[in-house]
Amino acid sequence: MLPNRPATLARRIAPPFGEVASGLMSGTNGEIAAIESIRRGLPQPPDGETWIGDDAAVVAGPGGESLLLAADTVVEGVHFDLDLVDAADVGWKALAVNVSDIAAMGGRPLHALVTVVGASAAMIDALTRGLAEAAAAYECAIVGGDLSSGPCLVVSVAVTGTTGGREAILRSNARPGDLLFVTGTLGRSAAGLRALRAQAGRGATAQAGLTGMAQPACVPAAPPELAAAYRRPVARVAEGLAASTGGATAMIDVSDGLGIDLDRLATASGVGVLVDAVPTAEGATRDDALAGGEDYELVFAAREPGAVARAFEAASLRPPIRIGVCVSDPRLRRIGDEPLPASGWEHRLR
Amino acid sequence: MLPNRPATLARRIAPPFGEVASGLMSGTNGEIAAIESIRRGLPQPPDGETWIGDDAAVVAGPGGESLLLAADTVVEGVHFDLDLVDAADVGWKALAVNVSDIAAMGGRPLHALVTVVGASAAMIDALTRGLAEAAAAYECAIVGGDLSSGPCLVVSVAVTGTTGGREAILRSNARPGDLLFVTGTLGRSAAGLRALRAQAGRGATAQAGLTGMAQPACVPAAPPELAAAYRRPVARVAEGLAASTGGATAMIDVSDGLGIDLDRLATASGVGVLVDAVPTAEGATRDDALAGGEDYELVFAAREPGAVARAFEAASLRPPIRIGVCVSDPRLRRIGDEPLPASGWEHRLR
Repeated sequence: MLPNRPATLARRIAPPFGEVASGLMSGTNGEIAAIESIRRGLPQPPDGETWIGDDAAVVAGPGGESLLLAADTVVEGVHFDLDLVDAADVGWKALAVNVSDIAAMGGRPLHALVTVVGASAAMIDALTRGLAEAAAAYECAIVGGDLSSGPCLVVSVAVTGTTGGREAILRSNARPGDLLFVTGTLGRSAAGLRALRAQAGRGATAQAGLTGMAQPACVPAAPPELAAAYRRPVARVAEGLAASTGGATAMIDVSDGLGIDLDRLATASGVGVLVDAVPTAEGATRDDALAGGEDYELVFAAREPGAVARAFEAASLRPPIRIGVCVSDPRLRRIGDEPLPASGWEHRLR
Repeated sequence: MLPNRPATLARRIAPPFGEVASGLMSGTNGEIAAIESIRRGLPQPPDGETWIGDDAAVVAGPGGESLLLAADTVVEGVHFDLDLVDAADVGWKALAVNVSDIAAMGGRPLHALVTVVGASAAMIDALTRGLAEAAAAYECAIVGGDLSSGPCLVVSVAVTGTTGGREAILRSNARPGDLLFVTGTLGRSAAGLRALRAQAGRGATAQAGLTGMAQPACVPAAPPELAAAYRRPVARVAEGLAASTGGATAMIDVSDGLGIDLDRLATASGVGVLVDAVPTAEGATRDDALAGGEDYELVFAAREPGAVARAFEAASLRPPIRIGVCVSDPRLRRIGDEPLPASGWEHRLR
């Protein structure tokens, strides 16, 4: 069921409902149009709430306080391949990508519900192990869920979160003149996937018993830190809180690639973006960093670099990397002298 | 992908994590064991919270107030067949069964997150219509979700809810001497599915062009009220609130059949149950009512029938039907002179 797509795109986490057509992606007939159709078919939120249209929804909880809600699903053969990751990795990642959506609002996670379709008993044990590890790492309680048979492994997670009384950081409030920051270097996950695929290909050749042929000894084992970035991504909860404290005006997590996710932030805010440089991780290419996705670093806009630096320092975090600036022309998407690529993964409808 | 199971079982909604092995179902190697394994692999809740182990979890929200959380998934070929229902029905039902989990705690729904895997563009439109209708009927805001390609239609819903400051009604607090009530007659959904299947079979025969053979004119169209009970089940939110007001000690929704769901309530509470009679819907058999499932009526235990009657009357609801009593022997499961059947649907692991 792996779609016939370039390797670095085929594994993308599907954008949540929120990630709606930008100027660069409108006119397509697939997922983006479907999300718009869903949004149009449902009631719109009251003032003060954010529903479909951001990393997480911001709603009033039972006592009137602000509650963050997000959901993300991973599907075998679409988002992951059990030849490259084990079920424990799938469990970790399914929770971590949801926590990342909460982090991108300046929040921290509280609870998760986990639905598992099509798992074997052994898979369930491994999934539970990975889920429990992520739940412990992010202090997010797994409080319920559902289990079903089905034709392939599907793990759906829904999370709640809180901003602790602060305003949630939406995508839509960046203003011209705001500086753009990213919480870390990019491209590690895409590079890790490529290395894991190469390694799996080498293994397959060896297993096929082609002993009369020279082994492709030039394919090294996947570097552990790159493989880990793909298999066990880190949600930047502390960084999201620091960005909020430091006056972030808009924020998004880099789930689908810096280009496309910056385009989403810019489109939601009605600003243009001018990027100076892409901070690229060691072992990754510039394209991995720009379009690879699944890095789960946070990109945010803020007015005062000094306040940002102080907030990150106070939280004992490495300083975020300044990558550019928001401008008033809402159509502008540039990296240096080039257009900012905003290609992205769309799920094919059946 | 329809499992090789009796017709009335093959469509059952999978029990959420909460619905753990009872005495009657332990020792199996499938879903029940998997749920226990998941529960064992995760941290346990603090005092005052209920996580895995009930229709919905009861947790502290961001402001400390009580928050209900539940998730349920429906899978094409496991829970529904697109020859018998349309995608709008799937949308309605996916939300309604989650709302029913909130109702079974004495709560009302607040928000829903909806994840859709493997839908066509036309299916998404119909799903959205059904979801929007259920969301309006239950005053439950659909605030986000996720969309992915995949090999079959999977709709996962997570809901939040509130008891409005009242104690949530767990499964586990029934005491010997408590009376048992159900909010309506049972078996309509199972009878509706049987009628829809018979009708679909007749259609298939006609389509096969067997004009030389007599048409099976004895198969009538599915009675609309039975078909509707299967396609568009009603979550008993007002009834759950009335039961809570009337002093319910324990409550569960009838998702898998009166026998198995009463067994779950009794096992969680450590009591036995003695059922006098099964209130059977017109057009349904006793077996439909006892073991058919998907009725989504609520079964509850309460001490004072007068208080129950007054609460339902005050809410302008039809009075609940008294069906039996809780007894001190925790192993007792009887209906009249017979054992209470507690057969149920377990998903096969792959």
